[in-house]
Amino acid sequence: MESLKRRIIEEGRVLSDNVLSVNTFLNHGVDPALIAEMGRAFAERFREYGVTRVLTIESSGIAIAYATALELGVPFVYARRRKALMNEGEFYAERVPSFTKGIVTDIVIAKELLKPSDNILFIDDFIANGDAARGAIKIVERSGAKLVGAGIAIEKAFQAGGSHLRELGIPVLSLARLASLEGGAIRFAD
Amino acid sequence: MESLKRRIIEEGRVLSDNVLSVNTFLNHGVDPALIAEMGRAFAERFREYGVTRVLTIESSGIAIAYATALELGVPFVYARRRKALMNEGEFYAERVPSFTKGIVTDIVIAKELLKPSDNILFIDDFIANGDAARGAIKIVERSGAKLVGAGIAIEKAFQAGGSHLRELGIPVLSLARLASLEGGAIRFAD
Repeated sequence: MESLKRRIIEEGRVLSDNVLSVNTFLNHGVDPALIAEMGRAFAERFREYGVTRVLTIESSGIAIAYATALELGVPFVYARRRKALMNEGEFYAERVPSFTKGIVTDIVIAKELLKPSDNILFIDDFIANGDAARGAIKIVERSGAKLVGAGIAIEKAFQAGGSHLRELGIPVLSLARLASLEGGAIRFAD
Repeated sequence: MESLKRRIIEEGRVLSDNVLSVNTFLNHGVDPALIAEMGRAFAERFREYGVTRVLTIESSGIAIAYATALELGVPFVYARRRKALMNEGEFYAERVPSFTKGIVTDIVIAKELLKPSDNILFIDDFIANGDAARGAIKIVERSGAKLVGAGIAIEKAFQAGGSHLRELGIPVLSLARLASLEGGAIRFAD
C-alpha cells in the first residue's frame, strides 16, 4: 500500500536493526484515514473467504481490525493480555513472548466469542517472529474455528513470522514488507 | 443512544453492584456497526468545538476513539499503559488507579503527539470514579492543549466521575447512563 510505505519513510524511526517506531500514525498516534484505507484493502483481499469474525490482539491491532470488520460487516474480537485472575473455564489462553518488548504475556479470549462455525481473519499491525500470531492461531484451532487468512500492516520480512504463516498455507496480505532496517535505513522487500 | 441501551439490557452481565461486563459487543468482542454509530453521535455533539485531536486510553477506548476521529477528520492518540523503560523526557506520564481492576498503572503519551494548539476531545468506553479521565486531563493540561469535551459510552452515574467532569465545566456526552446495578438489575438514569 503506497500511502503506508510513504508514511513509513516520512515518519518511521528506526530504533534498532529490528525495531521500527511508527508511533505518530499507527500505534500511539493514529491517522484514521490511513487505517480506513487499510481496512478497505484487507476487506477487498479477503471478501471471498466467508469471513465471519475478525481477530486481533490488544492494543495496536484494534483500530485496523475494527476498520476491516466494519468493511466486511462482521464482528471482531481482540485477545486481551491477561492482567488479573480470570475464570479458566471461560477463556482460552496462550503464552506469547514479545520479540520487541522482551516480555512474555498470556493472551486470552472468552470461549463464547469464538464459535466452531467461525471463519476467522487475523489482523495485526506488525508481524516479526510471529509469536503473537501463533498464539492467536492456537486459540483459533482450540475453538474449532477456521483461520481463513491474515492481514498484516507491516511485515518484517527479515524475520520468519510472515513466511511461517504462508508455509502453513494461510493466505497472508502484508501492506508493507520491510526487507531490512540495518544501519538505520528503511528498505522495502518489494 | 437507544441501540446501546438495548444491547446493554440484552447482553450486559452485572458482575457486582459496581461492575457491568459488556464483553460481547464493546470491549472484548466488538460490534463495529454499534461503534460506528457511537462515533457519529460523538462527532455530531462535538463538531462545533474545533476538535483537532481525539484522545483515549488503551485498550477499550480505541475503537470508539477511532470511529469518532474518522467522522471528525482528525487524528487520535491513545495513551499507553507504561510497560517498559521509557525515555522520561519524551513522554508525559500520570499514575492512574483502576477502580474495576484494583490496580495502579502509569499512562503515558508522547509529548510530540499533543500540541499547545490542540483542542482535545476525550473518549472512553466507561467512566466510573473518573480516575482514568483525570489522568488524561492532567496530561492535556501539562501539554498546554485544551480539553473541549468528553464522550463516554457508558457512564456509571452512581459514581462521581461524570459529575466531576461536568463540575469542571467540561461538556460531557454519555451515550448510556447507569443509575444502579444493585441486586443484579440494570437501571438507567434517564
